[in-house]
Amino acid sequence: MKKSIRIGLAQINTTVGDLAGNQKKICAYIGKARQSGCDIVVFPELAITGYPPEDLLLKKHFIAANRKAIQAVAGEAKDIVAVVGFVDVDVHGHLYNAAAIIAGKKIQSVYRKNHLPNYGVFDEQRYFTCGRDINIFYYDGLKIGVSICEDIWQGSEYCKRYAKQGARILLNLSASPYHCYKNSERQTVLKACARTSRSVVCYCNLVGGQDELVFDGQSVILDSKGHWITSAEAFQEDLCVTDVLVETSAGRKGQDLKGFSSQRSSSHPKILITRKKVQPLSRIDEIYQALVLGTRDYVVKNGFQNVVIGLSGGIDSALVATIAKDALGPDHVLGVCMPSRYTSEETLRDARAQAHSLGICFQQIPIDELFSAYLKVLQPIFVDHAVNIAEENLQARIRGNLLMALSNKFGHLVLTTGNKSEIAVGYCTLYGDMAGGFAVIKDVPKTVVYQLARRINVQQGKEVILKSIIDRAPTAELKENQKDQDTLPAYDVLDAILQDYVENDKGLAQLKRPGRDAALIKNIVQLVDRMEYKRRQAPLGVKITPKAFGRDRRLPITNQYRER
Amino acid sequence: MKKSIRIGLAQINTTVGDLAGNQKKICAYIGKARQSGCDIVVFPELAITGYPPEDLLLKKHFIAANRKAIQAVAGEAKDIVAVVGFVDVDVHGHLYNAAAIIAGKKIQSVYRKNHLPNYGVFDEQRYFTCGRDINIFYYDGLKIGVSICEDIWQGSEYCKRYAKQGARILLNLSASPYHCYKNSERQTVLKACARTSRSVVCYCNLVGGQDELVFDGQSVILDSKGHWITSAEAFQEDLCVTDVLVETSAGRKGQDLKGFSSQRSSSHPKILITRKKVQPLSRIDEIYQALVLGTRDYVVKNGFQNVVIGLSGGIDSALVATIAKDALGPDHVLGVCMPSRYTSEETLRDARAQAHSLGICFQQIPIDELFSAYLKVLQPIFVDHAVNIAEENLQARIRGNLLMALSNKFGHLVLTTGNKSEIAVGYCTLYGDMAGGFAVIKDVPKTVVYQLARRINVQQGKEVILKSIIDRAPTAELKENQKDQDTLPAYDVLDAILQDYVENDKGLAQLKRPGRDAALIKNIVQLVDRMEYKRRQAPLGVKITPKAFGRDRRLPITNQYRER
Repeated sequence: MKKSIRIGLAQINTTVGDLAGNQKKICAYIGKARQSGCDIVVFPELAITGYPPEDLLLKKHFIAANRKAIQAVAGEAKDIVAVVGFVDVDVHGHLYNAAAIIAGKKIQSVYRKNHLPNYGVFDEQRYFTCGRDINIFYYDGLKIGVSICEDIWQGSEYCKRYAKQGARILLNLSASPYHCYKNSERQTVLKACARTSRSVVCYCNLVGGQDELVFDGQSVILDSKGHWITSAEAFQEDLCVTDVLVETSAGRKGQDLKGFSSQRSSSHPKILITRKKVQPLSRIDEIYQALVLGTRDYVVKNGFQNVVIGLSGGIDSALVATIAKDALGPDHVLGVCMPSRYTSEETLRDARAQAHSLGICFQQIPIDELFSAYLKVLQPIFVDHAVNIAEENLQARIRGNLLMALSNKFGHLVLTTGNKSEIAVGYCTLYGDMAGGFAVIKDVPKTVVYQLARRINVQQGKEVILKSIIDRAPTAELKENQKDQDTLPAYDVLDAILQDYVENDKGLAQLKRPGRDAALIKNIVQLVDRMEYKRRQAPLGVKITPKAFGRDRRLPITNQYRER
Repeated sequence: MKKSIRIGLAQINTTVGDLAGNQKKICAYIGKARQSGCDIVVFPELAITGYPPEDLLLKKHFIAANRKAIQAVAGEAKDIVAVVGFVDVDVHGHLYNAAAIIAGKKIQSVYRKNHLPNYGVFDEQRYFTCGRDINIFYYDGLKIGVSICEDIWQGSEYCKRYAKQGARILLNLSASPYHCYKNSERQTVLKACARTSRSVVCYCNLVGGQDELVFDGQSVILDSKGHWITSAEAFQEDLCVTDVLVETSAGRKGQDLKGFSSQRSSSHPKILITRKKVQPLSRIDEIYQALVLGTRDYVVKNGFQNVVIGLSGGIDSALVATIAKDALGPDHVLGVCMPSRYTSEETLRDARAQAHSLGICFQQIPIDELFSAYLKVLQPIFVDHAVNIAEENLQARIRGNLLMALSNKFGHLVLTTGNKSEIAVGYCTLYGDMAGGFAVIKDVPKTVVYQLARRINVQQGKEVILKSIIDRAPTAELKENQKDQDTLPAYDVLDAILQDYVENDKGLAQLKRPGRDAALIKNIVQLVDRMEYKRRQAPLGVKITPKAFGRDRRLPITNQYRER
């Protein structure tokens, strides 16, 4: 016999720490789900606190407030089952990453996450104790299991436990951060989970930006054979409602949730609700949307309205300005061009034209007088010493100082424009071009910067990012006739080595390839290692690769390891 | 029957990643211990790799090189048992924080740490798998147990297992970072361990600085009743050799280490070796030594010879210069005074006099022309806008830029001078006074800055830090007649609130005290929360309190939690 059950995946954008705001949003989505006739509505992992709450979890008053919030949510949830992530605490004060199964205005039971990830960007064992039990509740005679994120990523044993208990549906509350190709990894895991648990899998992922992380949503429901039933939007909030048909066994019925009787037969509309399958985003479009959402949420959730960007006339700042415009609207973006004696006419013209083309605000502040003033004041000390990196960095730091002055005067957040390739090898100036609140493309390799720029132009069918900017050989313009490739290898060569070294942790032996210069490899590895101190003082930026600099890759600064 | 056994605690200063250097040092200390007639020599936790190696552990070639190094150490260890920390790996590729029991030029057995700390500054569960077994080896018929750091901090169950197995001596290899009062916590743990395990406890701690952490050494041996037998120096390398008398039971003798026969009867000198008990350092002297060692090791282990410090004429920079002088010698310290229109005659005189009194190098670079140049170039944009924090920060950032220019020109490391109270509430300028490679006193509250300054003068019986500097009301001198206390409460009030909020994670309700202004508390809490973005871009500095900003306290930047 088949039974129809209506599931809502409430793919919401929570804010870390905003207990009142998250509570309000959860209640609103419970209301919407009820209006859509949902039997069950599922929320993301730790929806009450936002994810990841980090050391807020060490504050007892925060934990207490989180418990109040989940109780308040429970009090408002009638005629529907809501499964909501929150922090549970036991009599010993141990914390659990948990899900409340709410029905009849009560928390009927609590599931405690069994598998706590403590790798990559995750530190859950710092805070939480592992739950030991699985959790199954009955709904209209059906057995429905509850799991949280990592639980279903840890091999098949866990899912088998649900199969053994006869679960027909397995809910998963997730906060699974984006990186490129992550969604296909996730599909593989979810398919395997559906088949192993022999259940319909209802996967509700978080959406939104939180510091370095972007959660891409893309929640999904698969049938017990692992076939797609429905999915939610990527990179935006969504309430994804679908009727799921479940095979019920003839066996004895279990006891339904206490004090709660299903309203489904009366509230269900007649029409079966389904969604059309949409084409998944391409890798490059996904990256772009991740950058836009991550930037918007960092700006907005930190209480800023406007951003300011140093527009050099180069491709990095042009891309960042485009992302900022798409994230916040052109009126909220100020581009500032700060030419020096080394800035070419073409670059300056392009900076202005790029701002104009994007429709963002624009200012020009020449720095040459300031540069001269520094050289003058330092002359008595620098005399007899050759010109070196000091003079180059002075210019970058003058620009950093000017952008920060605008930030301090007008309250704009400074967005920095360095890409991952530069930041990896330290081709950037601490307190100079690295000065700012958010480093939009810090995890985007230079080759991907070019791909993004070209894709934007193709997609919008116009020169959004100026062709002359895309075509010009990259230059920092900090001395006469400087080009990036005077110091660095071609970016496609560099990026390939960086991917192997930074993301895949390969050693020298494995980095060697036909056509790759051994001395070059060694040089790049050393640069990456030595520049750790710079990255440690860099602003946060959106993680888009499997391993981003930051909480994902934690190397000591003091580190004398040199592979030979 | 009593048996005498000679133990060496090789309290060495390792460097993270320097496998060859650490190996060489371990071999040298094994040699010294053998010359002193030691039966057994014990090294700190992860002596081969240095502690903590962080994500170096994710590099397979690093793990392989570490195994080669421990084998090389084993090959050199004859006529002595050496117990050395390294990273073990099993057939599944799982890593273990381990100790090699080396004798007869072989690794006789390996102990794998049972308890992996994953709180505070520790992330061991990110890397390591828990060992399940204890490890006992026989030496001259005696049962000797091996444990690593956290093992003995996790209640008595663990130590009881050794008691049950009849261990007479329990070795502990540690890397236990310093914070004030830590040593007395440690004594309590070690005493309890000795009594529970009914063993002599030989505790060998690491010494030296590694990024934010300082390891204070203070290794110790306690008898099976928990009484002190001997201890090693604080904050320096030491080979602490002592004869320990152990009660042996008449029971059956176990099998000694394979291929190894004790040389003790022949090599032991006739005289029983003991040490005099030294007076433990006072809290404030301990803090000072931690700051000196932490600074020296950061500078030296990162390959610098010299440091440069902005000397404002205030107490923070005077203290930092004093620490730097004691860490590196006066010739390796350059103090730079950068007066503006707001710098008073007295301050300027004091800055110069302080440098002179310490015997460090000195430069003066006036910043007023630069400041005027910035104001001029910004005038078209700032016109019609009131003077605000932007103008103050400009000055701080000019100074930051100048210090970095000196750093870039001469290769000196910039030491910053901000204290914990300032950094907590954001009374400091990003890319200004926060610009630099190492923030010496970032974990020292302002009240402790004063205590340190006074103590140095008392201890040395002269005005090392000028009295006029200690006595002047603190001021940032970024505008006319500015005083810290225009903006901040008195530092004793501020520091007490900060300790409760930052170190003890107390909520508003618990922060309230008779005499504490409720609005002030709320204001400070909000400042601390909002300034997370500044701290995240700050350089590292020495942890001296139970909870330092940095890896010890990991709060999100995007964080809308506001307690009401």
